[in-house]
Amino acid sequence: MERFIVPSKPIVTKDKRRALNGHSSFILWFTGLPCSGKSTLANTMEERLFRAGIRTYVLDGDNIRTGLNRDLGFSREDREENIRRIGEVARLFVDAGVVVLTAFVSPYRKDREMVRGLVEEGEFIEVYVKCPLEVCERRDVKGMYEKARKGIIKQFTGIDDPYEEPENPEIVVETDRLSVEQCVEAIWDYLRRNKKLVL
Amino acid sequence: MERFIVPSKPIVTKDKRRALNGHSSFILWFTGLPCSGKSTLANTMEERLFRAGIRTYVLDGDNIRTGLNRDLGFSREDREENIRRIGEVARLFVDAGVVVLTAFVSPYRKDREMVRGLVEEGEFIEVYVKCPLEVCERRDVKGMYEKARKGIIKQFTGIDDPYEEPENPEIVVETDRLSVEQCVEAIWDYLRRNKKLVL
Repeated sequence: MERFIVPSKPIVTKDKRRALNGHSSFILWFTGLPCSGKSTLANTMEERLFRAGIRTYVLDGDNIRTGLNRDLGFSREDREENIRRIGEVARLFVDAGVVVLTAFVSPYRKDREMVRGLVEEGEFIEVYVKCPLEVCERRDVKGMYEKARKGIIKQFTGIDDPYEEPENPEIVVETDRLSVEQCVEAIWDYLRRNKKLVL
Repeated sequence: MERFIVPSKPIVTKDKRRALNGHSSFILWFTGLPCSGKSTLANTMEERLFRAGIRTYVLDGDNIRTGLNRDLGFSREDREENIRRIGEVARLFVDAGVVVLTAFVSPYRKDREMVRGLVEEGEFIEVYVKCPLEVCERRDVKGMYEKARKGIIKQFTGIDDPYEEPENPEIVVETDRLSVEQCVEAIWDYLRRNKKLVL
């Protein structure tokens, strides 16, 4: 049929999807040392947003390293590709009108800035989950720091691979000083003050 | 703070997200020859769903080949990786409560079945966009078939790379016999009859 000849263009746009949802969409990018509290915060923040009727999704090691990125290791090159793909997927979720929360160490500044560049101005919100190395190491539920100290795990961020602190993160939460709830409230306040959820 | 020690678990689940949206989520996987009408159908179907208040997203060459998969070519190996990643991303959208429509040639049966295996029973709906090669070739708006015939493009599906027809697709739409609207109605009817949108 001739009507199939027309080049296809998206009819439903980001703006229309946001309007259907009744809120805007963006990336909340949690970055910090292993065991700094990124996943806990992302999941608790998601629940807070969800209760307010916001469409949300969390990307973390559990659903990315076992799926999309299961072919990648922890070399510098693979870490970069890991973050690139996560950034691209996060961009798709923003386009779909969903608030996406990502919880990855993402130790390199350059990689995080690359993700910032994938989306529009204001759609990338960097949350620095700040916590001293010794506190993270004490929390080490999975014994990862111990293994890194013994050399069983190589290229472990904070031990034998660097963590590059964000220079101008939108939000800093200090998880050695504040409770989970206080951190979530701080993030919520940022979103409210900056009208991030408003269409 | 000790409270950060608790291993994080997702609090908001697929079921909760679907409940917030008021509908279920799944993959509508459009497969067929180049120029068979996949993107046109995916975009028009998305609009039909969107008008009914359904949360939707389309994955196609425009947002995948230029982003997530821009490191991949068209060798057998790269095509397989292309489909694997698209499948993994589609799985995340289903988990997020979004109806995801994918428009890719996806010529190999094995790759499509791999994606089917990534999601739960009934969450993968294969739509075979059926159209004779000569009709696709006549529609060739971008002159791709012509280039493939001349050998300028190699490994082009339908010319020098095989298209493996689906054996048991959930839906078949014959785009040389039906209009875009008739195809969309056929897909809509399938979803309705099989209660695919019902929670």
